Amino acid sequence: MRILGIDPGLATIGLGIIDRSENGDMTAVDWLTIKTKAGLPIAERLCEIAEDLKGFLRTIKPDLAVIERLFFATNEKTALDVAHARGVIVHTVASARVPMLEPTPLQLKLGITGDGGADKVQMQTMLVHLLSLSEIPTPDDAADALALAVYGALHAPHPAVLAPQS
Amino acid sequence: MRILGIDPGLATIGLGIIDRSENGDMTAVDWLTIKTKAGLPIAERLCEIAEDLKGFLRTIKPDLAVIERLFFATNEKTALDVAHARGVIVHTVASARVPMLEPTPLQLKLGITGDGGADKVQMQTMLVHLLSLSEIPTPDDAADALALAVYGALHAPHPAVLAPQS
Repeated sequence: MRILGIDPGLATIGLGIIDRSENGDMTAVDWLTIKTKAGLPIAERLCEIAEDLKGFLRTIKPDLAVIERLFFATNEKTALDVAHARGVIVHTVASARVPMLEPTPLQLKLGITGDGGADKVQMQTMLVHLLSLSEIPTPDDAADALALAVYGALHAPHPAVLAPQS
Repeated sequence: MRILGIDPGLATIGLGIIDRSENGDMTAVDWLTIKTKAGLPIAERLCEIAEDLKGFLRTIKPDLAVIERLFFATNEKTALDVAHARGVIVHTVASARVPMLEPTPLQLKLGITGDGGADKVQMQTMLVHLLSLSEIPTPDDAADALALAVYGALHAPHPAVLAPQS
Protein backbone atom coordinates (compact mmCIF):
# COMPACT_ATOMS: atom_id res chain seq x y z
CA MET A 1 0.00 0.00 0.00
CA ARG A 2 1.41 3.35 -1.11
CA ILE A 3 0.60 6.43 0.93
CA LEU A 4 1.13 10.05 -0.06
CA GLY A 5 1.33 12.71 2.66
CA ILE A 6 0.64 16.29 1.56
CA ASP A 7 1.52 19.36 3.62
CA PRO A 8 -0.59 22.05 1.93
CA GLY A 9 0.66 25.54 1.08
CA LEU A 10 0.58 28.17 -1.66
CA ALA A 11 4.35 28.84 -1.88
CA THR A 12 5.56 25.37 -0.83
CA ILE A 13 3.70 22.06 -0.82
CA GLY A 14 5.43 19.19 0.98
CA LEU A 15 5.06 15.69 -0.47
CA GLY A 16 6.12 12.47 1.26
CA ILE A 17 5.60 8.93 -0.03
CA ILE A 18 5.87 5.73 1.98
CA ASP A 19 5.06 2.12 1.21
CA ARG A 20 3.46 -0.06 3.88
CA SER A 21 3.90 -3.80 3.57
CA GLU A 22 1.31 -6.43 4.51
CA ASN A 23 2.90 -6.85 7.94
CA GLY A 24 2.87 -3.10 8.61
CA ASP A 25 6.53 -2.30 7.83
CA MET A 26 6.97 1.20 6.49
CA THR A 27 9.53 2.34 3.92
CA ALA A 28 10.15 5.96 2.95
CA VAL A 29 10.07 6.06 -0.86
CA ASP A 30 10.65 9.75 -1.49
CA TRP A 31 10.08 13.22 -0.09
CA LEU A 32 10.14 16.53 -1.92
CA THR A 33 8.40 19.89 -2.33
CA ILE A 34 6.44 21.66 -5.07
CA LYS A 35 7.15 25.40 -5.10
CA THR A 36 5.37 28.32 -6.76
CA LYS A 37 6.79 31.80 -7.32
CA ALA A 38 5.64 34.57 -4.98
CA GLY A 39 5.49 37.16 -7.78
CA LEU A 40 2.92 35.32 -9.91
CA PRO A 41 -0.86 35.91 -9.75
CA ILE A 42 -2.54 33.43 -7.39
CA ALA A 43 -4.54 31.99 -10.35
CA GLU A 44 -1.30 30.96 -12.06
CA ARG A 45 0.13 29.54 -8.86
CA LEU A 46 -3.03 27.45 -8.32
CA CYS A 47 -2.77 26.14 -11.91
CA GLU A 48 0.88 25.18 -11.33
CA ILE A 49 0.01 23.34 -8.12
CA ALA A 50 -2.83 21.43 -9.81
CA GLU A 51 -0.72 20.49 -12.85
CA ASP A 52 2.32 19.42 -10.84
CA LEU A 53 0.23 17.41 -8.38
CA LYS A 54 -1.79 15.78 -11.17
CA GLY A 55 1.41 14.60 -12.87
CA PHE A 56 2.82 13.44 -9.56
CA LEU A 57 -0.32 11.39 -8.75
CA ARG A 58 -0.16 9.74 -12.17
CA THR A 59 3.48 8.80 -11.59
CA ILE A 60 3.40 7.52 -8.03
CA LYS A 61 -0.18 6.10 -8.01
CA PRO A 62 -0.94 6.36 -4.27
CA ASP A 63 -3.62 4.19 -2.64
CA LEU A 64 -4.28 6.82 0.00
CA ALA A 65 -3.53 10.53 0.42
CA VAL A 66 -3.23 12.25 3.80
CA ILE A 67 -3.81 16.02 3.57
CA GLU A 68 -3.40 18.02 6.76
CA ARG A 69 -6.30 20.23 7.81
CA LEU A 70 -5.58 23.91 8.28
CA PHE A 71 -5.46 25.55 11.64
CA PHE A 72 -4.64 29.19 11.92
CA ALA A 73 -4.19 31.57 14.74
CA THR A 74 -1.91 33.77 12.64
CA ASN A 75 -2.25 36.09 9.66
CA GLU A 76 -5.75 35.97 8.12
CA LYS A 77 -4.54 36.86 4.60
CA THR A 78 -2.00 34.02 4.60
CA ALA A 79 -4.66 31.64 5.96
CA LEU A 80 -7.01 32.46 3.09
CA ASP A 81 -4.23 32.05 0.49
CA VAL A 82 -3.24 28.64 1.89
CA ALA A 83 -6.92 27.61 2.01
CA HIS A 84 -7.23 28.51 -1.71
CA ALA A 85 -4.28 26.20 -2.43
CA ARG A 86 -5.60 23.46 -0.14
CA GLY A 87 -8.95 23.58 -1.96
CA VAL A 88 -7.18 22.98 -5.27
CA ILE A 89 -5.06 20.19 -3.73
CA VAL A 90 -8.11 18.40 -2.24
CA HIS A 91 -9.97 18.77 -5.54
CA THR A 92 -7.02 17.44 -7.57
CA VAL A 93 -6.63 14.39 -5.29
CA ALA A 94 -10.39 13.71 -5.29
CA SER A 95 -10.53 14.07 -9.10
CA ALA A 96 -7.83 11.41 -9.36
CA ARG A 97 -10.13 9.21 -7.22
CA VAL A 98 -7.53 8.76 -4.48
CA PRO A 99 -9.17 8.25 -1.04
CA MET A 100 -8.03 10.75 1.58
CA LEU A 101 -7.61 11.27 5.29
CA GLU A 102 -7.58 14.83 6.64
CA PRO A 103 -6.07 14.88 10.15
CA THR A 104 -5.81 18.09 12.15
CA PRO A 105 -2.34 19.14 13.34
CA LEU A 106 -3.32 17.86 16.81
CA GLN A 107 -4.43 14.47 15.46
CA LEU A 108 -1.16 14.23 13.53
CA LYS A 109 1.00 14.88 16.61
CA LEU A 110 -1.07 12.52 18.74
CA GLY A 111 -1.02 9.88 16.02
CA ILE A 112 2.75 9.94 15.53
CA THR A 113 4.10 10.54 19.05
CA GLY A 114 1.11 9.87 21.33
CA ASP A 115 1.57 13.46 22.57
CA GLY A 116 -0.69 16.22 21.17
CA GLY A 117 1.80 18.83 22.36
CA ALA A 118 4.79 17.23 20.65
CA ASP A 119 7.35 19.69 19.28
CA LYS A 120 9.26 19.53 16.01
CA VAL A 121 12.18 17.59 17.50
CA GLN A 122 9.90 14.93 19.01
CA MET A 123 8.09 14.55 15.68
CA GLN A 124 11.34 14.28 13.71
CA THR A 125 12.82 11.80 16.17
CA MET A 126 9.77 9.53 15.83
CA LEU A 127 9.87 9.89 12.04
CA VAL A 128 13.53 8.82 11.88
CA HIS A 129 12.75 5.90 14.21
CA LEU A 130 9.57 4.69 12.47
CA LEU A 131 11.08 4.90 8.99
CA SER A 132 14.58 3.72 10.01
CA LEU A 133 16.15 6.77 8.39
CA SER A 134 19.82 7.62 8.86
CA GLU A 135 19.08 11.32 9.31
CA ILE A 136 16.25 13.84 9.67
CA PRO A 137 14.56 14.38 6.28
CA THR A 138 14.69 17.90 4.85
CA PRO A 139 13.27 20.40 4.04
CA ASP A 140 10.75 20.75 6.88
CA ASP A 141 7.72 20.79 4.55
CA ALA A 142 8.78 17.44 3.06
CA ALA A 143 9.42 16.01 6.55
CA ASP A 144 5.93 17.15 7.61
CA ALA A 145 4.51 15.41 4.55
CA LEU A 146 6.36 12.19 5.45
CA ALA A 147 4.88 12.40 8.95
CA LEU A 148 1.41 12.69 7.35
CA ALA A 149 2.12 9.61 5.23
CA VAL A 150 3.20 7.71 8.38
CA TYR A 151 -0.04 8.84 10.04
CA GLY A 152 -1.88 7.34 7.07
CA ALA A 153 0.04 4.08 7.37
CA LEU A 154 -0.80 3.82 11.07
CA HIS A 155 -4.46 4.89 10.73
CA ALA A 156 -5.53 3.83 7.26
CA PRO A 157 -8.85 2.02 7.19
CA HIS A 158 -8.74 -1.51 5.78
CA PRO A 159 -8.23 -1.28 1.97
CA ALA A 160 -11.70 -2.76 1.41
CA VAL A 161 -13.37 0.28 2.95
CA LEU A 162 -11.20 2.80 1.08
CA ALA A 163 -13.83 3.66 -1.48
CA PRO A 164 -12.56 6.24 -3.96
CA GLN A 165 -13.93 9.76 -3.55
CA SER A 166 -16.38 10.73 -6.25
CA MET B 1 -18.29 41.20 -24.77
CA ARG B 2 -19.72 38.62 -22.37
CA ILE B 3 -18.92 38.97 -18.70
CA LEU B 4 -19.45 36.38 -15.96
CA GLY B 5 -19.69 37.53 -12.34
CA ILE B 6 -18.99 34.87 -9.70
CA ASP B 7 -19.93 35.22 -6.02
CA PRO B 8 -17.80 32.48 -4.44
CA GLY B 9 -19.04 30.06 -1.77
CA LEU B 10 -18.97 26.42 -0.75
CA ALA B 11 -22.74 25.87 -0.29
CA THR B 12 -23.94 28.43 -2.87
CA ILE B 13 -22.06 30.03 -5.76
CA GLY B 14 -23.79 32.94 -7.45
CA LEU B 15 -23.40 33.34 -11.22
CA GLY B 16 -24.45 36.36 -13.26
CA ILE B 17 -23.93 36.91 -16.98
CA ILE B 18 -24.19 40.18 -18.86
CA ASP B 19 -23.35 41.22 -22.39
CA ARG B 20 -21.80 44.62 -23.04
CA SER B 21 -22.22 46.12 -26.49
CA GLU B 22 -19.62 48.22 -28.34
CA ASN B 23 -21.25 51.43 -27.10
CA GLY B 24 -21.23 50.23 -23.48
CA ASP B 25 -24.87 49.14 -23.18
CA MET B 26 -25.32 46.29 -20.73
CA THR B 27 -27.87 43.45 -20.97
CA ALA B 28 -28.49 40.88 -18.24
CA VAL B 29 -28.37 37.48 -19.95
CA ASP B 30 -28.96 35.18 -16.99
CA TRP B 31 -28.41 34.78 -13.26
CA LEU B 32 -28.46 31.60 -11.20
CA THR B 33 -26.74 29.67 -8.43
CA ILE B 34 -24.75 26.44 -8.15
CA LYS B 35 -25.49 24.65 -4.88
CA THR B 36 -23.69 21.82 -3.06
CA LYS B 37 -25.13 19.69 -0.27
CA ALA B 38 -24.01 20.44 3.30
CA GLY B 39 -23.83 16.76 4.26
CA LEU B 40 -21.24 15.75 1.64
CA PRO B 41 -17.46 15.66 2.27
CA ILE B 42 -15.79 18.91 1.21
CA ALA B 43 -13.76 17.01 -1.43
CA GLU B 44 -16.99 15.95 -3.18
CA ARG B 45 -18.45 19.43 -2.94
CA LEU B 46 -15.28 20.92 -4.50
CA CYS B 47 -15.48 18.39 -7.34
CA GLU B 48 -19.13 19.30 -7.97
CA ILE B 49 -18.30 23.01 -8.06
CA ALA B 50 -15.43 22.46 -10.51
CA GLU B 51 -17.49 20.20 -12.79
CA ASP B 52 -20.56 22.46 -12.82
CA LEU B 53 -18.48 25.57 -13.40
CA LYS B 54 -16.42 23.91 -16.15
CA GLY B 55 -19.60 22.95 -18.03
CA PHE B 56 -21.04 26.40 -17.49
CA LEU B 57 -17.91 28.10 -18.88
CA ARG B 58 -18.01 25.88 -21.97
CA THR B 59 -21.66 26.80 -22.56
CA ILE B 60 -21.63 30.55 -21.99
CA LYS B 61 -18.04 31.27 -23.21
CA PRO B 62 -17.33 34.43 -21.19
CA ASP B 63 -14.65 36.93 -22.32
CA LEU B 64 -14.03 38.00 -18.74
CA ALA B 65 -14.79 36.61 -15.28
CA VAL B 66 -15.14 38.77 -12.16
CA ILE B 67 -14.58 36.79 -8.96
CA GLU B 68 -15.04 38.66 -5.67
CA ARG B 69 -12.15 38.56 -3.22
CA LEU B 70 -12.88 37.23 0.25
CA PHE B 71 -13.04 39.44 3.26
CA PHE B 72 -13.85 37.96 6.60
CA ALA B 73 -14.33 39.32 10.04
CA THR B 74 -16.59 36.41 10.95
CA ASN B 75 -16.23 32.69 11.59
CA GLU B 76 -12.74 31.41 10.79
CA LYS B 77 -13.94 27.89 9.92
CA THR B 78 -16.47 29.22 7.37
CA ALA B 79 -13.81 31.54 5.96
CA LEU B 80 -11.44 28.63 5.36
CA ASP B 81 -14.20 26.53 3.73
CA VAL B 82 -15.18 29.35 1.38
CA ALA B 83 -11.50 29.97 0.57
CA HIS B 84 -11.15 26.27 -0.40
CA ALA B 85 -14.08 26.71 -2.80
CA ARG B 86 -12.77 30.03 -4.11
CA GLY B 87 -9.39 28.39 -4.86
CA VAL B 88 -11.13 25.75 -6.96
CA ILE B 89 -13.25 28.41 -8.71
CA VAL B 90 -10.21 30.59 -9.56
CA HIS B 91 -8.32 27.53 -10.78
CA THR B 92 -11.25 26.34 -12.94
CA VAL B 93 -11.63 29.78 -14.55
CA ALA B 94 -7.88 30.14 -15.11
CA SER B 95 -7.69 26.61 -16.59
CA ALA B 96 -10.37 27.63 -19.09
CA ARG B 97 -8.10 30.57 -19.98
CA VAL B 98 -10.73 33.16 -19.11
CA PRO B 99 -9.13 36.44 -17.93
CA MET B 100 -10.31 37.57 -14.50
CA LEU B 101 -10.76 40.59 -12.29
CA GLU B 102 -10.82 40.11 -8.51
CA PRO B 103 -12.38 43.15 -6.83
CA THR B 104 -12.68 43.39 -3.05
CA PRO B 105 -16.18 43.92 -1.59
CA LEU B 106 -15.22 47.59 -1.08
CA GLN B 107 -14.08 48.01 -4.70
CA LEU B 108 -17.33 46.40 -5.84
CA LYS B 109 -19.53 48.78 -3.83
CA LEU B 110 -17.47 51.79 -4.88
CA GLY B 111 -17.48 50.64 -8.50
CA ILE B 112 -21.23 50.15 -8.72
CA THR B 113 -22.62 52.95 -6.54
CA GLY B 114 -19.67 55.31 -6.01
CA ASP B 115 -20.14 54.70 -2.26
CA GLY B 116 -17.88 52.18 -0.46
CA GLY B 117 -20.38 52.02 2.38
CA ALA B 118 -23.36 51.21 0.11
CA ASP B 119 -25.91 48.82 1.63
CA LYS B 120 -27.78 46.01 -0.08
CA VAL B 121 -30.73 48.21 -1.10
CA GLN B 122 -28.44 50.81 -2.73
CA MET B 123 -26.60 48.04 -4.63
CA GLN B 124 -29.83 46.43 -5.81
CA THR B 125 -31.33 49.77 -6.85
CA MET B 126 -28.27 50.56 -8.99
CA LEU B 127 -28.31 47.06 -10.46
CA VAL B 128 -31.97 47.39 -11.51
CA HIS B 129 -31.21 50.83 -12.98
CA LEU B 130 -28.00 49.88 -14.84
CA LEU B 131 -29.47 46.69 -16.32
CA SER B 132 -32.99 48.13 -16.91
CA LEU B 133 -34.54 45.25 -14.98
CA SER B 134 -38.24 45.24 -14.06
CA GLU B 135 -37.50 43.89 -10.56
CA ILE B 136 -34.71 43.03 -8.15
CA PRO B 137 -32.98 39.80 -9.28
CA THR B 138 -33.09 36.86 -6.85
CA PRO B 139 -31.67 34.99 -5.02
CA ASP B 140 -29.19 37.36 -3.34
CA ASP B 141 -26.14 35.31 -4.38
CA ALA B 142 -27.17 35.56 -8.04
CA ALA B 143 -27.84 39.30 -7.67
CA ASP B 144 -24.37 39.74 -6.12
CA ALA B 145 -22.91 37.87 -9.09
CA LEU B 146 -24.76 40.18 -11.53
CA ALA B 147 -23.30 43.17 -9.67
CA LEU B 148 -19.83 41.65 -10.14
CA ALA B 149 -20.50 41.24 -13.86
CA VAL B 150 -21.60 44.89 -14.05
CA TYR B 151 -18.39 45.86 -12.25
CA GLY B 152 -16.51 43.96 -14.95
CA ALA B 153 -18.42 45.77 -17.72
CA LEU B 154 -17.63 49.15 -16.17
CA HIS B 155 -13.98 48.39 -15.34
CA ALA B 156 -12.85 45.83 -17.91
CA PRO B 157 -9.53 46.65 -19.51
CA HIS B 158 -9.65 47.09 -23.29
CA PRO B 159 -10.11 43.62 -24.89
CA ALA B 160 -6.65 43.86 -26.44
CA VAL B 161 -5.02 43.78 -23.00
CA LEU B 162 -7.16 40.94 -21.68
CA ALA B 163 -4.50 38.29 -22.13
CA PRO B 164 -5.75 34.87 -21.00
CA GLN B 165 -4.39 33.58 -17.69
CA SER B 166 -1.94 30.74 -18.08
